Amino acid sequence: MRALVMGADGVRLLERDEPRAPPGEAVLEVRRAGICATDLEIARGYMGFSGVLGHEVLGTVIEGPSDWLGARVVSEINCSCHRCPSCAAGAPTHCPTRTVLGILGRDGALAERVAVPVANLHRVPPEVSDDAAVFVEPLAAAMHAFDEVTPRPGDRVLVIGDGKLGLLIGLVLARRGDLKEARVLGRHPAKLAILSRAGLSVSLASEVLSSGYDVVVEATGQPAGLARGLELIRPRGTLILKSTYAGGSALDLAPIVIHEIRVLGSRCGAFPPAVEALARGWVDPRPLISDRFELRDAERAFVRAGEPGVLKVLLAR
Amino acid sequence: MRALVMGADGVRLLERDEPRAPPGEAVLEVRRAGICATDLEIARGYMGFSGVLGHEVLGTVIEGPSDWLGARVVSEINCSCHRCPSCAAGAPTHCPTRTVLGILGRDGALAERVAVPVANLHRVPPEVSDDAAVFVEPLAAAMHAFDEVTPRPGDRVLVIGDGKLGLLIGLVLARRGDLKEARVLGRHPAKLAILSRAGLSVSLASEVLSSGYDVVVEATGQPAGLARGLELIRPRGTLILKSTYAGGSALDLAPIVIHEIRVLGSRCGAFPPAVEALARGWVDPRPLISDRFELRDAERAFVRAGEPGVLKVLLAR
Repeated sequence: MRALVMGADGVRLLERDEPRAPPGEAVLEVRRAGICATDLEIARGYMGFSGVLGHEVLGTVIEGPSDWLGARVVSEINCSCHRCPSCAAGAPTHCPTRTVLGILGRDGALAERVAVPVANLHRVPPEVSDDAAVFVEPLAAAMHAFDEVTPRPGDRVLVIGDGKLGLLIGLVLARRGDLKEARVLGRHPAKLAILSRAGLSVSLASEVLSSGYDVVVEATGQPAGLARGLELIRPRGTLILKSTYAGGSALDLAPIVIHEIRVLGSRCGAFPPAVEALARGWVDPRPLISDRFELRDAERAFVRAGEPGVLKVLLAR
Repeated sequence: MRALVMGADGVRLLERDEPRAPPGEAVLEVRRAGICATDLEIARGYMGFSGVLGHEVLGTVIEGPSDWLGARVVSEINCSCHRCPSCAAGAPTHCPTRTVLGILGRDGALAERVAVPVANLHRVPPEVSDDAAVFVEPLAAAMHAFDEVTPRPGDRVLVIGDGKLGLLIGLVLARRGDLKEARVLGRHPAKLAILSRAGLSVSLASEVLSSGYDVVVEATGQPAGLARGLELIRPRGTLILKSTYAGGSALDLAPIVIHEIRVLGSRCGAFPPAVEALARGWVDPRPLISDRFELRDAERAFVRAGEPGVLKVLLAR
């Protein structure tokens, strides 16, 4: 089959062996796959990954347990042992022996077909379109931002960053009618307009904002974003870190101590709440789709995904 | 009166006007005052403070409300308005208009006498010696490390740093008989020996430690300390930042996101629990006293406090 592969000579569309499903796994025929900022980072060497890229996938089960055959499914990306202390403690996304679809030790979904553990599958109800369903993984990550600390009624909440993740977090917040302020700070008027239409307050990074936010979500992946967050948060506020930074960033962390800020790192989220949010229409991620390609044009799709101002690029059958 | 003053020409013992007590304040005759790492930082320009140094103080009330006259007291260092939203929310240490004794906009206690708000005073019971009582402020800060997240029975807890603050945090932990491991990581065998005698596990920084700590307290003030903490903490563990860093430190914060670490900044603590810990003998900080001087030798005391390996230097009457 054809697959978009990260290898020694970069990201290439190559012919690969068909995936096989050992006991406990299933093979999906890929219907939609999304290209994520993490994929672009991997292409630059992040995680040292080599193999088939892609971890945002909607597919049809074509091999596996009979009760799953033919099902339209999304797949969680952390493939965990379900036996170790982390898994037993309800944190399979931190299983120390996990593989991660298209990121760590396991081929991903920017391909014709992909093998995944049956335990990772979630059926997608018919009211969720293919285009929406492929957002389940990033939407789950966005919703997970507020799993440990959920903004309280009357809070002022600020999201910094108008990339795909920042926008999804904004769309999640747009459902909260009980906040004093829900604002996304970004650099791209066209992206912020998606949020304005959803009812959020938006600001360009150059604007002067009044500080004292109860909750700030950092979703820029830039040290400057974190520094801005530390300026705008109230003492004892919660700063949620959703994106990673290149090593060696120069940062003044003294404000964290002086103002007793709570900094929470946040990565992957649970799929069922994200599937439900899409099924009920609470979040519509489809305005984030910038472009779509067939798999045979995957190399071009990957380049397109890295262009400035581009949001989600899908590979669609 | 004489006072140790931070000014344009550095830290000098100078003649100053007597402090006055406006309504709501009291004047203390200083019995003991401690020199803290923060004072040494201020001498290097931290906080841009100029005035009388010193925020660790035990004194006798010689001017103020009649029911306080003659009382042997310690004084909290944050002088707050007690009316603003921060104060009303129970966070007077974050009052935006606060002054801070010897740190921000208010003369400190490395002097013959000092003025403080009556609301900041706490009586010291007779069973607490002068030498122990002068540790109330740093002990309160040490105990506050665990106010937001208290280690659970069976947890593994690591303190990084064997300076004064790290040692006090270690002594607080030494009372916890219900932890799987309570360890302090440091660089000075003589300092770590104080903790060994109190029953704690200790390690030199060069030792290989088994990772997976549930709670890590960073008390070195060095970016390398935070980096080591991020290596040694378990996924979803709690990392408590107790000391500030110079701006521009190069740090890789990606592990905070990948392992979903909770980072808690922690500064000043409440005095009553610290007074009680001393009164009951739960913590004995006196082994941390390296040296003592009279006020007339305060400049020499200040130099001594900055020498390598020196712990607490007191000014004592």
